[in-house]
Amino acid sequence: MRETELHLDTLAQTESVFALANGHIGLRGNLDEGEPFGLPGTYLNGFYELRPLPYAEAGYGNPESGQTVVNVTNGKIVRLLVEDEPFDVRYGELRSHERILDLRDGVLRRTAEWVSPTGRAVRVSSTRLVSFSQRAVAGILYEVEPLDGATPVVVQSELVTNEAGPDTQKDPRAAAALTAPLVSEGFVARDTRAVLTHYTRASGLTMSCAMGHVVDGPGGTGMRVEAFEDVARLAVSAEASPGKPLRLIKYVAYGWSSVRSPPAIRDQVGAALTEAEHRGWDKLLAEQRAYLDAFWERADVQIDGDTELQQAVRFALFHILQAGARAEGRAIPAKGLTGPGYDGHAFWDTESYVIPVLTFIAPHAAADALRWRYDTLDPARERAGQLDLRGAAFPWRTIQGEECSGYWPAGTAAFHVNADIADAVIRYRDLTGDEAFDRNVGTELLVETARLWRSLGHHDAAGRFRIDGVTGPDEYSAIADNNVYTNLMAQRNLRGAADAVERHPEVAAKLGVDAEEAAGWRDAAERIVIPYDPDLEVHQQAEGFTQHQRWDFKNTTAEQYPLLLHFPYFDLYRKQVVKQADLVFAIVKRSDAFTAEQKARNFAYYEALTVRDSSLSASIQAALAAEVGYLELAYDYLAEAALMDLDDLEHNTRDGLHIASLAGSWFGAVGGLGGVRELGGGLSFAPQLPEALDRLTFRLAFRGRRLLVEVRHGQARYTLTEGEPLEIVHHGEEATLQPGHPLSRRIPRALRREAPSQPPGRAPARRRPPR
Amino acid sequence: MRETELHLDTLAQTESVFALANGHIGLRGNLDEGEPFGLPGTYLNGFYELRPLPYAEAGYGNPESGQTVVNVTNGKIVRLLVEDEPFDVRYGELRSHERILDLRDGVLRRTAEWVSPTGRAVRVSSTRLVSFSQRAVAGILYEVEPLDGATPVVVQSELVTNEAGPDTQKDPRAAAALTAPLVSEGFVARDTRAVLTHYTRASGLTMSCAMGHVVDGPGGTGMRVEAFEDVARLAVSAEASPGKPLRLIKYVAYGWSSVRSPPAIRDQVGAALTEAEHRGWDKLLAEQRAYLDAFWERADVQIDGDTELQQAVRFALFHILQAGARAEGRAIPAKGLTGPGYDGHAFWDTESYVIPVLTFIAPHAAADALRWRYDTLDPARERAGQLDLRGAAFPWRTIQGEECSGYWPAGTAAFHVNADIADAVIRYRDLTGDEAFDRNVGTELLVETARLWRSLGHHDAAGRFRIDGVTGPDEYSAIADNNVYTNLMAQRNLRGAADAVERHPEVAAKLGVDAEEAAGWRDAAERIVIPYDPDLEVHQQAEGFTQHQRWDFKNTTAEQYPLLLHFPYFDLYRKQVVKQADLVFAIVKRSDAFTAEQKARNFAYYEALTVRDSSLSASIQAALAAEVGYLELAYDYLAEAALMDLDDLEHNTRDGLHIASLAGSWFGAVGGLGGVRELGGGLSFAPQLPEALDRLTFRLAFRGRRLLVEVRHGQARYTLTEGEPLEIVHHGEEATLQPGHPLSRRIPRALRREAPSQPPGRAPARRRPPR
Repeated sequence: MRETELHLDTLAQTESVFALANGHIGLRGNLDEGEPFGLPGTYLNGFYELRPLPYAEAGYGNPESGQTVVNVTNGKIVRLLVEDEPFDVRYGELRSHERILDLRDGVLRRTAEWVSPTGRAVRVSSTRLVSFSQRAVAGILYEVEPLDGATPVVVQSELVTNEAGPDTQKDPRAAAALTAPLVSEGFVARDTRAVLTHYTRASGLTMSCAMGHVVDGPGGTGMRVEAFEDVARLAVSAEASPGKPLRLIKYVAYGWSSVRSPPAIRDQVGAALTEAEHRGWDKLLAEQRAYLDAFWERADVQIDGDTELQQAVRFALFHILQAGARAEGRAIPAKGLTGPGYDGHAFWDTESYVIPVLTFIAPHAAADALRWRYDTLDPARERAGQLDLRGAAFPWRTIQGEECSGYWPAGTAAFHVNADIADAVIRYRDLTGDEAFDRNVGTELLVETARLWRSLGHHDAAGRFRIDGVTGPDEYSAIADNNVYTNLMAQRNLRGAADAVERHPEVAAKLGVDAEEAAGWRDAAERIVIPYDPDLEVHQQAEGFTQHQRWDFKNTTAEQYPLLLHFPYFDLYRKQVVKQADLVFAIVKRSDAFTAEQKARNFAYYEALTVRDSSLSASIQAALAAEVGYLELAYDYLAEAALMDLDDLEHNTRDGLHIASLAGSWFGAVGGLGGVRELGGGLSFAPQLPEALDRLTFRLAFRGRRLLVEVRHGQARYTLTEGEPLEIVHHGEEATLQPGHPLSRRIPRALRREAPSQPPGRAPARRRPPR
Repeated sequence: MRETELHLDTLAQTESVFALANGHIGLRGNLDEGEPFGLPGTYLNGFYELRPLPYAEAGYGNPESGQTVVNVTNGKIVRLLVEDEPFDVRYGELRSHERILDLRDGVLRRTAEWVSPTGRAVRVSSTRLVSFSQRAVAGILYEVEPLDGATPVVVQSELVTNEAGPDTQKDPRAAAALTAPLVSEGFVARDTRAVLTHYTRASGLTMSCAMGHVVDGPGGTGMRVEAFEDVARLAVSAEASPGKPLRLIKYVAYGWSSVRSPPAIRDQVGAALTEAEHRGWDKLLAEQRAYLDAFWERADVQIDGDTELQQAVRFALFHILQAGARAEGRAIPAKGLTGPGYDGHAFWDTESYVIPVLTFIAPHAAADALRWRYDTLDPARERAGQLDLRGAAFPWRTIQGEECSGYWPAGTAAFHVNADIADAVIRYRDLTGDEAFDRNVGTELLVETARLWRSLGHHDAAGRFRIDGVTGPDEYSAIADNNVYTNLMAQRNLRGAADAVERHPEVAAKLGVDAEEAAGWRDAAERIVIPYDPDLEVHQQAEGFTQHQRWDFKNTTAEQYPLLLHFPYFDLYRKQVVKQADLVFAIVKRSDAFTAEQKARNFAYYEALTVRDSSLSASIQAALAAEVGYLELAYDYLAEAALMDLDDLEHNTRDGLHIASLAGSWFGAVGGLGGVRELGGGLSFAPQLPEALDRLTFRLAFRGRRLLVEVRHGQARYTLTEGEPLEIVHHGEEATLQPGHPLSRRIPRALRREAPSQPPGRAPARRRPPR
């Protein structure tokens, strides 16, 4: 991913795009010298401050404080003075600029040629890395070389805490800012090292950041190190000249804890620093490359015929990895660790978009993310109790596990997050066969969420199981009865829990589940209400939905999107207008619950109502469009999902990447064009290519096996690259894959028919691949 | 209304009960000496400050600031020093205490005998009045007389601005406090007069308060007057003795404006003061008495057999008069001018509870209150535009006309307020025949609200007119489709508007209403959806309601009421539990839309679900209970409504009286036991008495006539005390009332059957009248 010119007006977007992270540490792609910035950002997964959640009118059960991601000590700053002039691209002349996010090496490279206001030309280059192999460590190689004669230069490598950032926006999607959230606990500087330790006032977390350096400069290079409460600095001064650059390797280590003492955390980061210095820069680089080589081997998706899309999907895979690789018991937030959007919260995105992908390409990271949910069972059980429900009620949005939603109709009422978690658990087990996880982690998650559903729903006089007054995925509807998505996912959850306690009676006993309780889950699942409109012959997103007034799309102008910024929720909720795949997502996730005819009719009906004001929508629409035979439309949606951030389609990439949309681009390619479905422990494929593409290949892990699938027009080839023989289904036909015997199968000719239309102006951009 | 002992723990409640007001000025019944207080309060109708309305998550169309009633300059303070000891009931010995709210004289009288800590006994007496005849004026007669020998006394008559009050509660129903909202604009003191002028920071309102005095003391009485920014003081010192009291008459005048200059307002209050002094105390008292004599002549309700209820209903009538008598273009807030509850806002209470009563007993005040709505048409039209609707959307809660609700599901979504206004307009015209009002005020209100409904609803595929996603009266449900109350009231609104433009084609032309538009209103009204459950044979409060889970009343403890303080709205909304009459109110207001059988079945069904966590419920239940034959239950509910504040049944009378419940007690007696219904321009009666009562009489104004109705067991007597002959209906039989010929009619024997039950623990107290 290469940038060849610097545009200050899109700086914040590029900072998100060029962000480096390993799931634990996240560094936005800010310029080394700190300024100008769009939005400075350095994050530690799980490190947050509390802020009060205010309400104009109080209500029982409203969360009183919210968790907000903190911009922690910035360890990536390396400032440069050229003959006393600060290197700042806004002054002097920037002769050339290049940034490369290297998806194979896992580093961000930058080179710039700059002429200072006093006329001294220098070449600056840096390589930045957030280590996958050493989780607590980031590193920077920084080099400055004068281009025309010896020049005095000073390089200041810094740690800066409580950076000033820009004012927050009024847009509800932009994160609330926190001013100076960190309080100094101590600072030390010695030799080439410095450490700053801070704590948060309200959340009571302590963090420490340490830096160490290796300096390689011309003779006479001098150094000075100092530290204060909120800044530490190593200043290196040298007379550099062409061919004799000043070169600095900076290692930065981070650590934080809610439990351990400041000295313990300080020592921990010191040790990490020592280890990084001991390995050395080249080894860190080599380990990074090796980690990524292994990743691409498992995960790469090749798309021939559309190089832009090819790049976007790889970019997406890289960022999914960065979001989840080493989270290890922490959440995967909606923005990963790339920006402060949504306050750094994790949503249902994790389980519904990211984990399903990780389960296929990086199962250990999927398991880690689900373990984070497991670790938050206690606050979820407390929340359920507060809501007068049984089991666990997982939060709509959170960092640490407590509900942080300040608007319950689109927050707490969106109970489907619980079924989404259960679905990810069931899916993970089905795809990996990880029985230890199933026993130690999965079953309890399934049981506690099943208990929630059983208490949330009730049987009506006719014995049907209803779930009333909840909010489904579509955020332009709320508090409705019997949302199909919610009910089908709850059904899966209830059955999954009943199956799990049958597999693990000892866990069931520990959790107090008896045969009656499990039978109650199965009965409720069996009798769950799925609203259907017999006149229109489509499912109702929720009871009554198809009787509501259709949104007046004709008189809605392009400027009035996204609708939530121009119309009150009152108006959106009561009309037929869909922000994002809801019933369509139900069909994709519960493919077994709909006939082919129903899928097609439903898709057409809801397609005409769906405005895609959410980045979560396109990838799901891609998947169902492909399944019901609209390949070109699927291709358009796939491209939209993949280019969400590279093209800044929602105008808020500045606040961080849309990790779920990026994950969705994998799903759009593999689940959509590849037609991959997994239900009940088997894999089926229904690959098809849109005209523009020549070839699609993808890789999957499945129960200890690895598969390579190559799709061309008219033909698919399945290769078992690792593991035991496997039964698969290709376009409805069963086949057996044998090791060492790739299997080629014809692809039936696709139905050619007119795709259904979207609301005026809301069709996805027609994909015309730049060749 | 007499209080014979002072209880400091219920001081705030008694301050509300003993409040004096005339619709323009409101004085809580604070002790003359200012302290101790429960909640000090002095209000000017319409005088407010703005406060920000915060949201944890922003949303388009949420009001950003709210209007809050201001505790203005306190003109009722008269402090006393007895031999340098401040008269304070918390010290020394209070030998006797009496307060009398005199409902005939319209004054609050107080007498106390107090022995100071130094052993000097004095008798203090005061008479306080807020003038009905001179709207801007209040007055106090204050007298202190030593009981055992000459005693030096100092009386300080004060104006105090920005009084400190108690901290606000966390209870969402208690009002938000404003600290020191008034900024000094000027102060003057001369002779026995002083004036303080202030303005509000954000709302930009200016107010002025002036006091003048007549002092009558023993020889050697001295005086000193002074003023500062927030206090003005006349200090009178005298050597009083038994038989030679010190006596002070204090006149207080108030004025405020959003437009006029501070000098103009100061002069205005000065002039009011001069006029009051010119009339003199005795004349003010006499005018007050005359005003009330006339009121009781038109309004009195006599209940023989239950003296407590008799007193409570008269107390209620007095406070309704106080809330509305001289509001003259201002709102009638939910608490009147008796306390800061609900931020001083007016709700649908005004049109649904208070105006219907005023229309029968003080029609000019009803017209005034509706004129206030008319004056707020502009902000209501703006709000409709903001919500993408046509016509006018009146606010759920307001002082000045702008929406001040910070929680839209129970605020803006409660669109029925618009139909309630229309209903009050139609009712006012039907009962008074006031054609000028109909033409100049009523028609535009009907047209703009009809336009709102037409744009809020839509026709479904079957041509039925639906109103989806709105909130009815029951605040334990929200955002539902086709709420019966809302739809029936909207139907009345639409038809009323169509009728009005037929009567006033010139107004229709001015408002741009053509025949097509009016026909559209009639069509929509004709096809409006009224959900009905054919299995249960009851109407559904809203579509789907009867399929929801019933609230688990059995496991809800007495301490968990009111439910809104112990359960989240999420839970309340999705279950069958009713806070207050909703479908039952629909039946009472649209008696024509239900058969007798439906009324009885519906009443029984909803009675079992209604918890009466709102003070707005009992009176409506009383009315329908009586109609469907549960006289004793009606009596219980009537007593609950009437005793709401005297018995502090909701534990928040401290924040002000429940004016709607008080008005409801009239309706419970007249509409319930009297069985009065007015629809389509005629009056019908179906009087019946519960066993405990011997007689009920009430008075009604109707189209220039005045009626007196006397009900005894087995017989009713109708007297036309003024006006032309009138056709009435008595228990279904038509009759003609002639002047000078009272008509007696037998009352059919009431059906005796078991009343339906309420949720456990939520039955009204069984009324056992203290004889």
